[in-house]
Amino acid sequence: MIYFDAVRDRSKAPSLVDQTVAALEKAISQQMLRPGMSVPSVRQFAKTHGLSTFTVSAAYNRLVAQGWLIARPGSGYRVAMRGKAEPVSTVPVNWSPPRVTASWLLSDVFADHSIPIKSGCGWLPPEWLNETGLEQAMRQAARVPASQIGGYGHPYGYFPLREHLTQELAQHGLRVEVDQVLLTQGATQGLDIIARTLFRPGDVVAVELPGYANLLQTLRLAGLTVVGVPRNKDGLCIDALQKIARTQSIKALFVNPVLQNPTGASLSMGNAFRVLQLAETHGFWVVEDDVSRDLMPDLGPLLAALAGSERVIYVSGFSKSIAPSMRVGYIVATAALLKEFAKTKMTIGLTTPEIMERTVYQVLRLGRHRPYLQRIQERLRQAHDELVEVMDRHGFEVFARPRAGLFLWARPKGEWCAQRTAQLAELALKDGIWLAPGYYFYPDQTDDGWIRFNVAYSLHPSLWEFMRRVGAASG
Amino acid sequence: MIYFDAVRDRSKAPSLVDQTVAALEKAISQQMLRPGMSVPSVRQFAKTHGLSTFTVSAAYNRLVAQGWLIARPGSGYRVAMRGKAEPVSTVPVNWSPPRVTASWLLSDVFADHSIPIKSGCGWLPPEWLNETGLEQAMRQAARVPASQIGGYGHPYGYFPLREHLTQELAQHGLRVEVDQVLLTQGATQGLDIIARTLFRPGDVVAVELPGYANLLQTLRLAGLTVVGVPRNKDGLCIDALQKIARTQSIKALFVNPVLQNPTGASLSMGNAFRVLQLAETHGFWVVEDDVSRDLMPDLGPLLAALAGSERVIYVSGFSKSIAPSMRVGYIVATAALLKEFAKTKMTIGLTTPEIMERTVYQVLRLGRHRPYLQRIQERLRQAHDELVEVMDRHGFEVFARPRAGLFLWARPKGEWCAQRTAQLAELALKDGIWLAPGYYFYPDQTDDGWIRFNVAYSLHPSLWEFMRRVGAASG
Repeated sequence: MIYFDAVRDRSKAPSLVDQTVAALEKAISQQMLRPGMSVPSVRQFAKTHGLSTFTVSAAYNRLVAQGWLIARPGSGYRVAMRGKAEPVSTVPVNWSPPRVTASWLLSDVFADHSIPIKSGCGWLPPEWLNETGLEQAMRQAARVPASQIGGYGHPYGYFPLREHLTQELAQHGLRVEVDQVLLTQGATQGLDIIARTLFRPGDVVAVELPGYANLLQTLRLAGLTVVGVPRNKDGLCIDALQKIARTQSIKALFVNPVLQNPTGASLSMGNAFRVLQLAETHGFWVVEDDVSRDLMPDLGPLLAALAGSERVIYVSGFSKSIAPSMRVGYIVATAALLKEFAKTKMTIGLTTPEIMERTVYQVLRLGRHRPYLQRIQERLRQAHDELVEVMDRHGFEVFARPRAGLFLWARPKGEWCAQRTAQLAELALKDGIWLAPGYYFYPDQTDDGWIRFNVAYSLHPSLWEFMRRVGAASG
Repeated sequence: MIYFDAVRDRSKAPSLVDQTVAALEKAISQQMLRPGMSVPSVRQFAKTHGLSTFTVSAAYNRLVAQGWLIARPGSGYRVAMRGKAEPVSTVPVNWSPPRVTASWLLSDVFADHSIPIKSGCGWLPPEWLNETGLEQAMRQAARVPASQIGGYGHPYGYFPLREHLTQELAQHGLRVEVDQVLLTQGATQGLDIIARTLFRPGDVVAVELPGYANLLQTLRLAGLTVVGVPRNKDGLCIDALQKIARTQSIKALFVNPVLQNPTGASLSMGNAFRVLQLAETHGFWVVEDDVSRDLMPDLGPLLAALAGSERVIYVSGFSKSIAPSMRVGYIVATAALLKEFAKTKMTIGLTTPEIMERTVYQVLRLGRHRPYLQRIQERLRQAHDELVEVMDRHGFEVFARPRAGLFLWARPKGEWCAQRTAQLAELALKDGIWLAPGYYFYPDQTDDGWIRFNVAYSLHPSLWEFMRRVGAASG
């Protein structure tokens, strides 16, 4: 079947990839291609339309990243079972942009589900989730007799999930007992519990530059003094960390080694080793925030497995891979330390809801979770490839090219490159685009032009049209 | 039908009430009386067995409190639909008592679900819960499409529940808008959020003597200095509060006005009025912890309704009335202040799980929640009456006789009366009895002989046998 006639004069038309994408979107919208149907192979499509396989492959990748197609290794491409929601290309009539404030991540924009383009958000699109597995697990968990969930549950959380986690962690080389796993209200509560149990107001801790924005708020609220260690493409700046460790008595380093928020980059094994060596020498804790490991197709350093629980406190959760609204995370530490964390957990909110922990357990056990993770990893890889190509084309500088995880850290060209992302984000909001300007990720709000892009939300043509219009992108 | 022949010689036999209870327990166990069946009226039973109606009424009350019978106003008594679980009268063979430590509420005993007699716990027996409504609500909530719970949810929590709460609060005279309701991980997280948002380490706040044990930990962890105001039968000691307010610059008073934890007593309207007057005069916040209102059949003062949100921050939740493991609570404050609380909530744990909030919403809407609450109130009243009678008989001093709520505050006779409840609790644990000794409820761990009894768990004969054996009870 011929889907379109390509216009080959580049001066008069969108790129051949754009034309191919548009033609297939139209075919799916008009139900010429229905959910679940196979689409022609790359080779076949290229032959029929007189295009290069490179062009068709790029178009298919983009359609996968946008949720129109699903790639099935070995059996080509199919139309996604749920047609992608019609992309919102214009701002709704009554939509008014939320205010951009210093607490932006914490209230207005975060709460505004109506914002059309969520390039600045930190989660997978809901339609990418393992819906079948999740729904099955929720129903399974909801079948528990009320009498079994009558009390508060165990302070450490639902035992079978904790046991399951020890098995999963062992596969990553981290061997711990069940009494070393404490379930928390997401990884974020885990970080708060650690900060409040181990440190006192005025204590100095080190964070990454840039680093997880909400952690900076958590540490500030706990009254801690924060010093920054620059992050580069393959890890932490060792010289800077060494200097800080020598001159300041830091109690801990908070680090997100794999698919870091916001840069997307991971520590190399060598870098991880040197960081841990410094921690040993100078006697500070390493708090390892590992929330994105499930999105990582390759191996990446797991610091707690390398240096043990006497040195590294491990924090993770399921917001990135199952669903943020479950609010299930966990801490791994020595049994003695974990008991102190459990006391803090009880002090600040008592137990965590067992039903959600049962749901997560069911997802991991029954929900065909591993094949789902592989599909997500593949989908993210394709979105990364596509977005990097878009960025290269638009003259953006890309910090690292991780080809995995949610985030790409990049900065625009020209005058927008220096200290203007706050204004750029404000302009973008007026167009219904949520950007995550870099200054949120620095304790001193450094604005050096970087922006965090969620690859799953950043291929929308309106985003790049906006960037071109304001002169942040070439092309 | 004749159920038994009463032995009337008191020197040789248990009391007539005990004999009646035993006979009916046996009849139910042996299915002579089946679940759902009516039992003879008090008058009828008394006539058949030659007993006084007082004796039979006391026996029926005890059977209701123990879960064998259900009282239906206007239509007599029936056998409970689920036969009560066989009471555990001996300690299991492999059971070893948990350690009693200062953090007892927070770890060992709290976590030990195997402890046979939970007189010290702070929740309803699971078999008293509205199981049908709860299970129905969980299933209903679990039917939500995964795509709808894909993100983090709103920072303030599930909108329909917040809206529903404004309607319920309005019925109690507290009129607020939806943007004045913030959902939290139980009332406990609500208290932590308030403490961390409004106060700085070193600030002085007032609490009740005795008062909610976990709140003392929460305030201590937040670095606050705590001063105590004695609680008496009908409220706070006004002279003491006045003196503290004059001599110390207190920022807030934390108060649990209705069915207080641990005394079970409620503020009189007059006392509430004077407390609020002092708050106005001296300009301190009142933080109203109102978690037990749903267990209160009568009206009790609602401070936030009396003095408004400019003076009173209101905290409540559903652990006492729906199920603790839901972990759903809420704060009510002015819209401006609530926004600050929302920021703290996000900083320390991001959003709360929407599925649980949807479940609570379904319980309130669909679960026949009001008739259930009436049944629970009735059952608690009967347990109170029965337990007060047991205590009077055993020479215990009872602080207040609220006839509602979970708690009765009482102290043993003799040498156990002064400064010995710590040891008494330790002895009791060896017998598989969890007691809540009074010193947990004072900031300075005053041990003046008081014990908090959960009326739903304190009618077990082994508990009173233990008390008699160690000389804490007469009889």
